[in-house]
Amino acid sequence: MVSKNQRKQILQLKQKKYRLKSGLFVAEGEKVVEELLSAAWECLSLFSIASHFHPQSVEIDTAIMKQLTHFKSPSPVLGVFNIPESKPLLSQKITIAVDGVSDPGNLGTIIRLCDWFGLSQLICSAKTVDCYNPKVVQASMGSIVRVECHYVADLSKTLINFNKPIYGADLEGQSLYNTPFEEEISIVFGSESHGLSEAIEKQVKKITIPNFRSGRGAESLNVATSSAIFLSEIFRSR
Amino acid sequence: MVSKNQRKQILQLKQKKYRLKSGLFVAEGEKVVEELLSAAWECLSLFSIASHFHPQSVEIDTAIMKQLTHFKSPSPVLGVFNIPESKPLLSQKITIAVDGVSDPGNLGTIIRLCDWFGLSQLICSAKTVDCYNPKVVQASMGSIVRVECHYVADLSKTLINFNKPIYGADLEGQSLYNTPFEEEISIVFGSESHGLSEAIEKQVKKITIPNFRSGRGAESLNVATSSAIFLSEIFRSR
Repeated sequence: MVSKNQRKQILQLKQKKYRLKSGLFVAEGEKVVEELLSAAWECLSLFSIASHFHPQSVEIDTAIMKQLTHFKSPSPVLGVFNIPESKPLLSQKITIAVDGVSDPGNLGTIIRLCDWFGLSQLICSAKTVDCYNPKVVQASMGSIVRVECHYVADLSKTLINFNKPIYGADLEGQSLYNTPFEEEISIVFGSESHGLSEAIEKQVKKITIPNFRSGRGAESLNVATSSAIFLSEIFRSR
Repeated sequence: MVSKNQRKQILQLKQKKYRLKSGLFVAEGEKVVEELLSAAWECLSLFSIASHFHPQSVEIDTAIMKQLTHFKSPSPVLGVFNIPESKPLLSQKITIAVDGVSDPGNLGTIIRLCDWFGLSQLICSAKTVDCYNPKVVQASMGSIVRVECHYVADLSKTLINFNKPIYGADLEGQSLYNTPFEEEISIVFGSESHGLSEAIEKQVKKITIPNFRSGRGAESLNVATSSAIFLSEIFRSR
């Protein structure tokens, strides 16, 4: 059974302003919810279309789930979780930052990539899509429990304060394959439509993934796939 | 002005069976439509919410575009195009194949990646999502004009006939970073949920992207990001 208030709350949590106000977010999908529960993230309510998904879960009809879901197709499991308190921002050897990534699927995929490459934090400019957006949580496939997104008001200043070389992924610049990266670096990925912001552009050494097609070809790569290539290239030699 | 028949046709083209029957598909978005027009793909009708997009385009209201679009948000441009005749399948040095990739965004992204790395064909198993699905066309960002998708009934047989080593991206196997690939190879990427199919699994040497997190981490990577890493790794040394 889903109460009227619970339903209202779940639907409101689609919007960032309600997430900020309540400190809650919605996670959907068996895998994602299981990751959050295993990581002991505080769960306020849990609904499942299958019985006995979890001792805490309440069984509901698919028809009800369809009313609650933030997706086109309802997930078998949906939970409302507390947004955990943020931990202090650490200066790690490799710092990954995103500068205005707006597509939730892209941000979620980048979080999953950071997790794969063993990183525990991702720095996000203020204009980057909220990491507790249901589609980001979904695309992260639960990696959000291991990769903390730190939203910073001034990305440029934050990176400068780390006092290590800053690289930016761009359509121009030095080839990724010929760049001997230092042991400690920051790398910034720009937005899908505008690339790196002006403030960041001034601070970075631009690095590019060479285009292998001679003549007219794809003008760019999707930000999630280009981050994948950068991360692989940086980590493979470590 | 959009006639009743044109509207009906555009909406029907969401479905693969109508695309097969009519030999037509719908492309949306300025960049994608421009790519198709530049590549001289035959355009049957073209609508735009802005005037003078193209000599052939008919200006329509945003409200009408909202009724035609296959997406949540309408694109400024929508065109109906002829599906070109397929060219013969070539044996090239590097052959990329997908085995049951079902998410349109993933297939489109892989097409865009193939384009970036200079490949002109992608082999798709029969269970792979149709490349003329509007979301594939959109995610390919127009790269579909340079990368032909060949759908084959028996992927395993097709690859064996090329008579060169076949590699499969998997969660287990030899590290991608320690694999000296031959000059001529095929690589297969499996489906998002089931990986490589049984028939293909028997024919491939499994290669994996090492997971850099010690302890519990992301269980897998998205198929589009893992293809990006494989392609980068194969091409960077060429």
